[in-house]
Amino acid sequence: MTSVYIAIACGILAVIYGAITSGQLLKLSAGNERMQDIASAIQEGAKAYLGRQYTTIAVVGVIVAVVVAVTLSLTSAVGFVIGAVLSGVAGYIGMNISVRANVRTAEAARGSLQGGLTAAFRSGAVTGMLVAGLGLLAIAVFFWYLVEVAGYAPDARIIVEALTALAFGASLISIFARLGGGIFTKAADVGADLVGKVEAGIPEDDPRNPAVIADNVGDNVGDCAGMAADLFETYVVTLGVTMISIALLVQASSEELLRLMALPLIIGGVCIVTSIIGTYFVRLGRGESIMGALYKGFWASALLSIPAIYVATRYTLGDLDRTIGGAGFLDAAGDELTTSFDEIGETAPGVTGVSSASVDSFTGMDLFWCMLIGLAVTALIIWITEYYTGTKYRPVKSIARASETGHGTNVIQGLAISLEATALPTLVIVVAVVAAYQLAGIIGIAFAATSMLALAGMVVALDAYGPVTDNAGGIAEMAGLPDEVRHKTDALDAVGNTTKAVTKGYAIGSAGLAALVLFGAYTTDLDEYFPDLTVDFSLSNPYVIVGLLLGALLPYLFGAFGMTAVGRAAGAVVEEVREQFRLNPGIMEGTSRPNYGRTVDLVTRAAIKEMIVPSLLPVLSPIAVYFIITAVAGQANGFAALGAMLLGVIVSGLFVALSMTSGGGAWDNAKKYIEDGNYGGKGSEAHKAAVTGDTVGDPYKDTAGPAVNPMIKITNIVALLLLAALAGGQG
Amino acid sequence: MTSVYIAIACGILAVIYGAITSGQLLKLSAGNERMQDIASAIQEGAKAYLGRQYTTIAVVGVIVAVVVAVTLSLTSAVGFVIGAVLSGVAGYIGMNISVRANVRTAEAARGSLQGGLTAAFRSGAVTGMLVAGLGLLAIAVFFWYLVEVAGYAPDARIIVEALTALAFGASLISIFARLGGGIFTKAADVGADLVGKVEAGIPEDDPRNPAVIADNVGDNVGDCAGMAADLFETYVVTLGVTMISIALLVQASSEELLRLMALPLIIGGVCIVTSIIGTYFVRLGRGESIMGALYKGFWASALLSIPAIYVATRYTLGDLDRTIGGAGFLDAAGDELTTSFDEIGETAPGVTGVSSASVDSFTGMDLFWCMLIGLAVTALIIWITEYYTGTKYRPVKSIARASETGHGTNVIQGLAISLEATALPTLVIVVAVVAAYQLAGIIGIAFAATSMLALAGMVVALDAYGPVTDNAGGIAEMAGLPDEVRHKTDALDAVGNTTKAVTKGYAIGSAGLAALVLFGAYTTDLDEYFPDLTVDFSLSNPYVIVGLLLGALLPYLFGAFGMTAVGRAAGAVVEEVREQFRLNPGIMEGTSRPNYGRTVDLVTRAAIKEMIVPSLLPVLSPIAVYFIITAVAGQANGFAALGAMLLGVIVSGLFVALSMTSGGGAWDNAKKYIEDGNYGGKGSEAHKAAVTGDTVGDPYKDTAGPAVNPMIKITNIVALLLLAALAGGQG
Repeated sequence: MTSVYIAIACGILAVIYGAITSGQLLKLSAGNERMQDIASAIQEGAKAYLGRQYTTIAVVGVIVAVVVAVTLSLTSAVGFVIGAVLSGVAGYIGMNISVRANVRTAEAARGSLQGGLTAAFRSGAVTGMLVAGLGLLAIAVFFWYLVEVAGYAPDARIIVEALTALAFGASLISIFARLGGGIFTKAADVGADLVGKVEAGIPEDDPRNPAVIADNVGDNVGDCAGMAADLFETYVVTLGVTMISIALLVQASSEELLRLMALPLIIGGVCIVTSIIGTYFVRLGRGESIMGALYKGFWASALLSIPAIYVATRYTLGDLDRTIGGAGFLDAAGDELTTSFDEIGETAPGVTGVSSASVDSFTGMDLFWCMLIGLAVTALIIWITEYYTGTKYRPVKSIARASETGHGTNVIQGLAISLEATALPTLVIVVAVVAAYQLAGIIGIAFAATSMLALAGMVVALDAYGPVTDNAGGIAEMAGLPDEVRHKTDALDAVGNTTKAVTKGYAIGSAGLAALVLFGAYTTDLDEYFPDLTVDFSLSNPYVIVGLLLGALLPYLFGAFGMTAVGRAAGAVVEEVREQFRLNPGIMEGTSRPNYGRTVDLVTRAAIKEMIVPSLLPVLSPIAVYFIITAVAGQANGFAALGAMLLGVIVSGLFVALSMTSGGGAWDNAKKYIEDGNYGGKGSEAHKAAVTGDTVGDPYKDTAGPAVNPMIKITNIVALLLLAALAGGQG
Repeated sequence: MTSVYIAIACGILAVIYGAITSGQLLKLSAGNERMQDIASAIQEGAKAYLGRQYTTIAVVGVIVAVVVAVTLSLTSAVGFVIGAVLSGVAGYIGMNISVRANVRTAEAARGSLQGGLTAAFRSGAVTGMLVAGLGLLAIAVFFWYLVEVAGYAPDARIIVEALTALAFGASLISIFARLGGGIFTKAADVGADLVGKVEAGIPEDDPRNPAVIADNVGDNVGDCAGMAADLFETYVVTLGVTMISIALLVQASSEELLRLMALPLIIGGVCIVTSIIGTYFVRLGRGESIMGALYKGFWASALLSIPAIYVATRYTLGDLDRTIGGAGFLDAAGDELTTSFDEIGETAPGVTGVSSASVDSFTGMDLFWCMLIGLAVTALIIWITEYYTGTKYRPVKSIARASETGHGTNVIQGLAISLEATALPTLVIVVAVVAAYQLAGIIGIAFAATSMLALAGMVVALDAYGPVTDNAGGIAEMAGLPDEVRHKTDALDAVGNTTKAVTKGYAIGSAGLAALVLFGAYTTDLDEYFPDLTVDFSLSNPYVIVGLLLGALLPYLFGAFGMTAVGRAAGAVVEEVREQFRLNPGIMEGTSRPNYGRTVDLVTRAAIKEMIVPSLLPVLSPIAVYFIITAVAGQANGFAALGAMLLGVIVSGLFVALSMTSGGGAWDNAKKYIEDGNYGGKGSEAHKAAVTGDTVGDPYKDTAGPAVNPMIKITNIVALLLLAALAGGQG
């Protein structure tokens, strides 16, 4: 249990770091009155939106909490509420610091590039550490309470269910927050661009554009709050499912199980410490490379994490060469299984053909190697994402070059890059799965995913830095600060495009690893809840194919909803702004101030309306598939189709998400590359084509693509809870 | 065997129909001298391209034939050559009639819309009947020879291998033809548009554009020859794999097997007859609805096919209520299998967990119902495709409306529609799989796919009509025919966009059904060739997930290659045309004729160069995956990963192909909808945005999307042949 206490202490440390760093940030000058005016308009808009978003989600949340309490248990409902509330809190605090850091970054950038970088990155680091810290605290404290206070065995059914419900709470909030925030930010962004840049011919972030505040609000509620909720969810689900898998799969004494289940927590804890240390390495070198400065922070965290993880593993497990328990889906259930193929459909217990997926035992050293694999995957995904979205490499340059021949070729090349960008991350994930599985079976894959997420504090810091610099640029423009300030914030922002894409690739990559673990949990649960049912998960079972196809469909349908929602809401913004221009001609002349609040309000209503149906899609689809297939082909095939659906959604979602987020980032930076003076620079025909590509990439990378990650998780978790509910709930 | 003779007779009938109808077509007037001049330039270009393409493919083909002969058998090599040569012949003849019908359609459209429609549709019908007829003849005659002349048992190993090799030959050629033709047609189209419409400001098909002939050549070599080769391949693979599955899975007497294996052949035969009858129903009604006229032909064929299939089934199988054989992967192998989960990895024979995928028996009536399901799937896919790509419905209108706010929103809405368009076809396929499987197991699914393809003659006719009208429009423009002629050909062409999308949806839909059957063949083969190897195809096996992910990657990577190739080749066209304009200013003044041949030659070289690597991707990937995973995790997991790859490629390819082909069709028709006078009509800002969408959709719908279908097939067939080769070949 000491490891759990250490983890809790590290979680508290992250919160303290957040409080201290926030204090330092708030002490920075918030600039002149005009800047503060603008910043407070953004603050108000962001708070108003998040307030309404969370109110709406709360209604759904309360209903679901009651359903969980009734079908499962009160403990599970408590877990659900903890997950949901903390996911919301992570987003809210992230937004809150971000809307204060933006103006301070603009002001600091008047001084030096380093000043702007520090202000923006500190703000990101607060969000990052709170995401990791609150996530760790949520699981660790809940686990501590259930084991130490309530006295349950570490592998008790109720602990598995309660941790699953905790993950569900986090996922449910995060899908709404990711999608709602994503629709808000891109509807405002696309709408503002269309009516401002294209129709009225005024530059980006021109204060005469009534949608300009909404655009800046969007950065905070989408790229910051939505992203934070998403990564909080990813953190909680990954650590949670690792612990659940240990409880379900590993055959060992209670004491050994407790140690193993505490391991993901302490790993999360020590990596928070290394991440905090890493934040102090973010400094510009002589070359003034911003990406280089951010990388220094990441590499410091990653490299320090290697000995930290080793020591933590050694401390928790003791002798690293000692063989630990037996892991295996069937062994864990304690059954002696002998199933004849001729008896399928009869009473032979067990899940067909899963035992070869088990590894009987592993050592602490094996787990350490698996965690190094997770760190390597993180580093490789960052590198690959930078290659595909950075302005220095072939992909972005090829899109910029294609812009010379027009809008069409820009989009064609962007789509080609977005398709291509899926290849390397997939190969990295495949190699990681094979290597971790060879070392320690499913548990090995789970620990690889855990160590990936252990660096979440640092990765989120790199991401949350982006919207702050984006806002800072907007404020500099609107407040009429000198051009050089805008140049500095633009330079900071260009790197933000890459770091934003990185986090998305990282989240979806970890989902690729976690998917196998979640599926393992599903099959083991199935075996435990329905021991008399033989479920055939073989690819030869057509219901498995049906499940794979239906699962694969979800990201497409979800993407279609997201893209359509942005298009529709952006159209509404265009009409609203046109009306303001028409009713109040003084706006364009600069003599009259536009009604920013009305536009913010419009986007708020549109985003909240549009987020409901698509968010419910992954919640309700698994339930529908199970009941329909069960009605048609019996319960065993219902479970087979449902299980296959869980993998179908990752097999297709991985590609949809990777292609959308990388492609979108590449389009955005191709535009920036041209604005840097290549292929004719700003105002050229190539630039116009690149703006089109950027617009197309916007909902790709910031609405539809990133929401695929929580969608995958929620589909999986709903399936696990459905199993428990069908079995009647426990405790 | 009588049924086989009937099938052969019907195949010959199709060829005769083709000859007679070609004769009728050629008797039509080919217009004035100017028109004939243009048409002969197109003819020369198309012939030159196809000649070079087939020469290049022949080099690959000869190498592969030798490999097949050495690793398998001479008989298989003969099968490969037959498939390859006839696939080429189908494409070549289709192109040949199409380049003659184009000018005759333009001339006939001077008279009446009905005249133009008849000429274009007859040309399509020739291609359609030859595709179906040659496909049927290839399989039926080869099967007849092996059984009647060479005296093999219908389920002899050598027959299975030879039919697989036949399918391989057809697939290998068709992937080159589809991709090469697709790159040619879209490089020329996009290049011509960019440099003509956008840069020089001259209309589409303006004779001053040096790329205009290449554009028209492209319609013939891509949309006609490439498509014909693709559908030939789909036909041969679907019927072939149905026969192979019967041989492998059904436990029955030789006589009964022969009857069952002849059934797909006679079904193909009678549906050729109903398709030929259907072609005579294509007539404009009072409403002058072109789509309505084409639908009349399709519905006549489909409805006549119902009794025809019933009679053919009754004739071949006798009493339709008699229970036929036992079908089951394991039973077919004749083993008594009792596998304990604890023994996995040891010597228990068989493929883990496949037996629940077997249905023990079925009646002739069950098969009849399955074939009706296939017809229903065809009709539904046509209807869904029309909904998503027709100018009358929400999707196309929504793209047109989004064009009002610019290039970006046009592309966003088009992408949203392309994602959404995957949903209904997937649901149709899922329902069909479940229903056919409930009726008659895997064999039922195979027969549903067979009856889908039985209508190929009619469906290809609807498709091949498109490029003819497109060409006719181009010739009318270049020859300076009156505007009303161009209006008529444009009206014919708009429908062509939908029918072209229909065929692609149909081909990929049938691939969805065939995938399960191919996987069934794979597992059965595996069990037969490697009886001592236990392969775990359960989703719990990480190597299965690895295979699914790698398979899912293939369509993305392939799509990226295709899109990039078009972008690169189109860029080369732009530069070539710019140079012609620069060197010869008389071209733009209309005093000097551009060098059309040079542009055709450039596109030819580019397309052939670009097609090689992507086409080899699906051939080499399965082999690489098998050997790498075998090296890492043993042969059983190598086979598991390979098998999963086959399903991964369809699970992801289905969505990639459907979204690309439907989205591309919708973009194209949104442009046409605006050109019809909506949202400002031709020349408006909305029109410019719609042109961008159309350009983006071009390589989506005509290069990358349709080539996914042969890619899926070839991956599957290579896997089957790899199994046979590893087992040492037979005969």
